[in-house]
Amino acid sequence: MDKDQTYMMRAIELAKQGEGLTRPNPPVGAVLVLDDQIIAEGWHKKAGSDHAERACLKKLPPMPVNLKDATLYVTLEPCSTHGKTPPCTDIILEKGVGRVVVSVVDLNPAHAGRGLTILEDAGVEVRSGVCEEAGRELIAPFEKRITTGLPFVTLKLASTLDGKIADCNGDSKWITGPEARERVQDMRRRADAIMVGAATVRADDPSLLPRPSGGRKPWRVIVGTHIPEGSRVRTDEFANQTLVRSGDLRIILKELAEKQGVMHVFCEGGGKLAAGLIGAGLVDELALFMAPKLLGSDGLPNFGKNGALMAEMTNLRFQSLERVGKDILIKAIPED
Amino acid sequence: MDKDQTYMMRAIELAKQGEGLTRPNPPVGAVLVLDDQIIAEGWHKKAGSDHAERACLKKLPPMPVNLKDATLYVTLEPCSTHGKTPPCTDIILEKGVGRVVVSVVDLNPAHAGRGLTILEDAGVEVRSGVCEEAGRELIAPFEKRITTGLPFVTLKLASTLDGKIADCNGDSKWITGPEARERVQDMRRRADAIMVGAATVRADDPSLLPRPSGGRKPWRVIVGTHIPEGSRVRTDEFANQTLVRSGDLRIILKELAEKQGVMHVFCEGGGKLAAGLIGAGLVDELALFMAPKLLGSDGLPNFGKNGALMAEMTNLRFQSLERVGKDILIKAIPED
Repeated sequence: MDKDQTYMMRAIELAKQGEGLTRPNPPVGAVLVLDDQIIAEGWHKKAGSDHAERACLKKLPPMPVNLKDATLYVTLEPCSTHGKTPPCTDIILEKGVGRVVVSVVDLNPAHAGRGLTILEDAGVEVRSGVCEEAGRELIAPFEKRITTGLPFVTLKLASTLDGKIADCNGDSKWITGPEARERVQDMRRRADAIMVGAATVRADDPSLLPRPSGGRKPWRVIVGTHIPEGSRVRTDEFANQTLVRSGDLRIILKELAEKQGVMHVFCEGGGKLAAGLIGAGLVDELALFMAPKLLGSDGLPNFGKNGALMAEMTNLRFQSLERVGKDILIKAIPED
Repeated sequence: MDKDQTYMMRAIELAKQGEGLTRPNPPVGAVLVLDDQIIAEGWHKKAGSDHAERACLKKLPPMPVNLKDATLYVTLEPCSTHGKTPPCTDIILEKGVGRVVVSVVDLNPAHAGRGLTILEDAGVEVRSGVCEEAGRELIAPFEKRITTGLPFVTLKLASTLDGKIADCNGDSKWITGPEARERVQDMRRRADAIMVGAATVRADDPSLLPRPSGGRKPWRVIVGTHIPEGSRVRTDEFANQTLVRSGDLRIILKELAEKQGVMHVFCEGGGKLAAGLIGAGLVDELALFMAPKLLGSDGLPNFGKNGALMAEMTNLRFQSLERVGKDILIKAIPED
């Protein structure tokens, strides 16, 4: 890893602190380096608040520092247009930063490369495409929304090795161990909306909030009908973050992207909603926790599609395998 | 890895060439090293034929070589008793080997350490316990049989991520890809018996033989009744290696160990036999191939146990995870 990569990975790490907070903006991180030392860091914390570059440059000490020999690392190309905040190119030029390194160039074709051109024309040295894969992964939900109008959907399921998410009484406590459940909280914190089927609410009465929340207020989306009046999602202090929807899954997701600015939906099942989303080609990533357990054929299936024919099978591609406590986490991507 | 370990791993590799061939004896390998060079290798090829040590020492060149400074590496303690062949300690002393390194000491308490003591008393330098874990794993089926009277059972299943081994018509061709199916052939070659339920024979009419066989002639054990007269296991040239059994699974396995000298049973399902073996505590190792696929709730389950209650769940422990082509291989051990 060269120095640019090392500092960019730090900027990506900072950006991740904004995941689940910045909708409809992407999470962005920035690091300012002078003489091989990080002298300021920043990240985008919320739509309407400072962009990462500005947040970073504002943290400079009050005494004047010459930034001619400094490099600003930003995970996404600095904006060059007035939005809720002034253009980031302005503050970079104003502070006299000599070099700017970017991971991903702006995805909007109308703006792509414009910020970098402005900087270059003003004599700033520019490099882009550093740690591009990681930078791109970071903004995959943002990219999905702006390019398709739909949110990025992570489907999380937790099952036994025979594919069961609960026993024949609907009891699912606990298929997976504490480490896996902790990891699910991390995943919830990165999402803009947590989605489950109505049957899951009836069976488990979940809060569907990350614990601890880290300031996150994800939407809670219940798909289906017959949500008991007394259920937590209807009665707790975050009841106004609960949306109950039924009907076409694509339309539900489209509405979340448009009206709520949702980029990343974290769906936690059950098996019927999972099958509906997968069947409609709406899942971007499957995160399947598997416990080293076998339950039996009357348990609730992780994939609640009626029928089963080889010719109609859903194909995926394994992306990663990982041990999480006593369980494993399998990530897979649906194939087209 | 020190030199003793390097040569012992080679001896273990040689021993593996005998897996599936040596019943009721364990697979054993031997390497003779002089001046940091392997000058002879051998392994046990079949009950009644030379033990590994003798096979190795017989391969020495006809001209006299002084073996005072040579080391013989053997995966299992040399025998000191007359069986179908003379004691290995005799030939070691006769050839004047100066040093003997052993991985695992004889498991039979009546003989354990006796071979080594005889060698030591005759002035041979002795070391034991080198690569003991790998040496022990090699003879796990042998150990299981001599200590419990039951064979070591590997349960192999190949399923989708929703735990299905075939579709609702019984079609299972192909859940997993060619690399996984190739690996299954390797596993079959290491076993003394291939076991399936009668329903699998009716559905797939399998040959249950390793391809290529590498000289293996495993028993084919069909559990259940109603095997069609025309099925391959009844009609092909190896029909005399087919056993059809029903009733108590423990008694079936005990008979295989006692009468056929079977140390290692490789069971390939289906789901009902899998559940029966696991439920009776007869499975030593689960080898679950999982394809990146989802089938649907009417497919055949990999674990065909009726009912499903959290309190009655079968617990295992993950041992290893591995990608095999586009599939994954999960190995797990049942917990007591």
